[in-house]
Amino acid sequence: MNLFALRGNIVYSKDSKNLELTEDGWLVCMDGVSQGVFQELPEEYAGARVIDLKGQVVLPGLSDLHIHAPQFAMRGNGMDMELLDWLETYTFPTEARYEDITYAQAAYSRFAADLEKSATTRACVFATLHTQATLLLMEKLEKTKIKAFVGKVNMDRNCPDYLREESAQKSLADTRRWIEESRNRFQNIMPILTPRFIPTCTDELLEGLAKIQQETSLPVQSHLSENLGEIAWVKELCPKSHFYGEAYDQAGLFGSNGKVLMAHCVHSSKEEWELMKERGVFLAHCPQSNTNLSSGVAPVKEYVKEGIRIGLGSDIAGGYSTSILRAMADAIQASKLRWRLQDEKAEPLTLEEAFYLGTVGGGSFFGKVGSFQKGYEFDAVVIDDSRLLPPHVLSLRERLERIVYLSDDRDITGKYIAGKQVF
Amino acid sequence: MNLFALRGNIVYSKDSKNLELTEDGWLVCMDGVSQGVFQELPEEYAGARVIDLKGQVVLPGLSDLHIHAPQFAMRGNGMDMELLDWLETYTFPTEARYEDITYAQAAYSRFAADLEKSATTRACVFATLHTQATLLLMEKLEKTKIKAFVGKVNMDRNCPDYLREESAQKSLADTRRWIEESRNRFQNIMPILTPRFIPTCTDELLEGLAKIQQETSLPVQSHLSENLGEIAWVKELCPKSHFYGEAYDQAGLFGSNGKVLMAHCVHSSKEEWELMKERGVFLAHCPQSNTNLSSGVAPVKEYVKEGIRIGLGSDIAGGYSTSILRAMADAIQASKLRWRLQDEKAEPLTLEEAFYLGTVGGGSFFGKVGSFQKGYEFDAVVIDDSRLLPPHVLSLRERLERIVYLSDDRDITGKYIAGKQVF
Repeated sequence: MNLFALRGNIVYSKDSKNLELTEDGWLVCMDGVSQGVFQELPEEYAGARVIDLKGQVVLPGLSDLHIHAPQFAMRGNGMDMELLDWLETYTFPTEARYEDITYAQAAYSRFAADLEKSATTRACVFATLHTQATLLLMEKLEKTKIKAFVGKVNMDRNCPDYLREESAQKSLADTRRWIEESRNRFQNIMPILTPRFIPTCTDELLEGLAKIQQETSLPVQSHLSENLGEIAWVKELCPKSHFYGEAYDQAGLFGSNGKVLMAHCVHSSKEEWELMKERGVFLAHCPQSNTNLSSGVAPVKEYVKEGIRIGLGSDIAGGYSTSILRAMADAIQASKLRWRLQDEKAEPLTLEEAFYLGTVGGGSFFGKVGSFQKGYEFDAVVIDDSRLLPPHVLSLRERLERIVYLSDDRDITGKYIAGKQVF
Repeated sequence: MNLFALRGNIVYSKDSKNLELTEDGWLVCMDGVSQGVFQELPEEYAGARVIDLKGQVVLPGLSDLHIHAPQFAMRGNGMDMELLDWLETYTFPTEARYEDITYAQAAYSRFAADLEKSATTRACVFATLHTQATLLLMEKLEKTKIKAFVGKVNMDRNCPDYLREESAQKSLADTRRWIEESRNRFQNIMPILTPRFIPTCTDELLEGLAKIQQETSLPVQSHLSENLGEIAWVKELCPKSHFYGEAYDQAGLFGSNGKVLMAHCVHSSKEEWELMKERGVFLAHCPQSNTNLSSGVAPVKEYVKEGIRIGLGSDIAGGYSTSILRAMADAIQASKLRWRLQDEKAEPLTLEEAFYLGTVGGGSFFGKVGSFQKGYEFDAVVIDDSRLLPPHVLSLRERLERIVYLSDDRDITGKYIAGKQVF
């Protein structure tokens, strides 16, 4: 039995409206699972190894539901463009570099190093279409101890020659080989089916991926209703679909065969919402990316209210910051401008809601993850906020708010994933 | 004669549409003044002391046109509120703490330390109404070598008892004493007249300040048309003014007696624009604050096009970040959402424009500041962006874009103000 207890200032969520705040409390972990948070250490855990964090703040590990690993090398570039131009001018040429394994080695090392020291403990990651580089990425991420789904990307149309798979058949065969190889090699890193998005995937490819999902029960990730130009394009490409999500659904990739995660949903129709709810499709809200690419602001508060399953994504490199704390702040800020500029009935997100999205909201994609309630997997990050403290005393909620808005990777002093200490 | 030359990758603006980019070039400083940027060191400067920055990037020093020093202690707190509530709940109680000189000592030390290591070389700073604490702030800033205008705040109505000056007369007498004392004591720090905003200043106070401006030729800073509730309030308080700016003007504080700087102008009417243009009133655009307080997004691109003089402000603590590089990114991002959500004719700001605002735009308030053109005061910052570089080679514009979006204070390795090296 592996039993230990962190002593510190502990914050977590049970629901999206409230924060559970315990000053100078105890957080107990047994065999990788949280036993809960206590003001005093309960007698039954008296034998626990005690780690005294001396006033530091402990948060649940954060989940990044949408991040393109190869684009880490171009984050913060091409920011003056919209989605479709940006893909052609920056993204596709960058992704093409990963055919060169030496480049992939250098770039993915930096990506993994960044993620390792971040507050992220779980992630859903897009790689590129290159099988070898994708396996290399998985290998690098495995070493960070982060638990992640990583997807070799499928794309066989409407993309430049230099970054397009030869045929649906070849793409599917490569995908099967990649799945097999990655399932044997990694403990923390799992494969996820990753059709890039409807415009770049033929029907044959999508249907083949749905078949693989049926056989393997792997989850699926893709993009949905990010940008108005993209939506119009999908309408043209799929005249039989009434809405974008239905194009995935008609191929069998919208939750009918297993777990599905869709990024963005900035401009989803009510029908799309309904189908997502019905099928339990997860949504990755990526506020920084949706702002940078001038896509708009997703109606997150309504999604939460509707009961749609939703978490946060950095969407490197539509977004430029890998921090999910920053994504919380961005989500709040974007929702404020949505309220002020677009829809005066759309009240902005609160700190409580944004924190929930970055912890429990996203964590739920991985199981019981993102909270310290008893029974949750023990993902925790320790923040030393002393650099951020003013001369007067702050409440723990105020400290959390400052951590969300002001902290960076320098302030993260500890990280645990499923009970294992990373640093 | 003090002659030196920096060798590095040099970026600056001559206008808002273009960047001047010189890879591996020379930037020459003589007696505190830029002699220009050169691809090769001209013979006439052959005797210059050479500082080889070994591939680092050199930018002009940045100007923060609007920052509340006392609110540094509360940045990142109270972010779920709008302006008027936020003032009552967070801001006024925080500012009241500065009556206690021990608190002021601790808080202003942190503020000055943050500014010192930042890329900011010029600033327009609000203090509080407390004369003693304001002098202390000026003393601390003097040591950072930053050149700044600092204002003791005037406020004699519509604020809580614990943070209101006894009377207009007392406020004016205190202001005169403070001006006299600060003029004798500091080299880099200059006083600026600082009526908080129309709602908190009686006519008598405003008119008295206008008189002081006539006598002293000091500049004036205040707030203008930030929030719709505030504008409605001013309309009520000043029935004789047709628009908010006119309320300052009627008191003689809108450029008729000297230099004036107004923060925000999110919701300025065309009449207000016209008067600002006519009077050469400077505008401090504070995108992060305007987002956090759900104020809206100022039409910056139109202001620039109209020829209104405009720079960037962090507006600590409506904004939480003191970085003017961050303010550039925020200005671009906010303008994108304005374009997408509010006005499809309002094209977003480009990197070129945002960089111009944070350098020459704001610098102009201080004279010939914010560029490396010959004759400009030599304010420069050196950025080591090696932490941010990908495995492939970036153009200098791409490096600048990454610096704007990704760098933080860790990356700032050198700073010069009017030719003097700070670090």
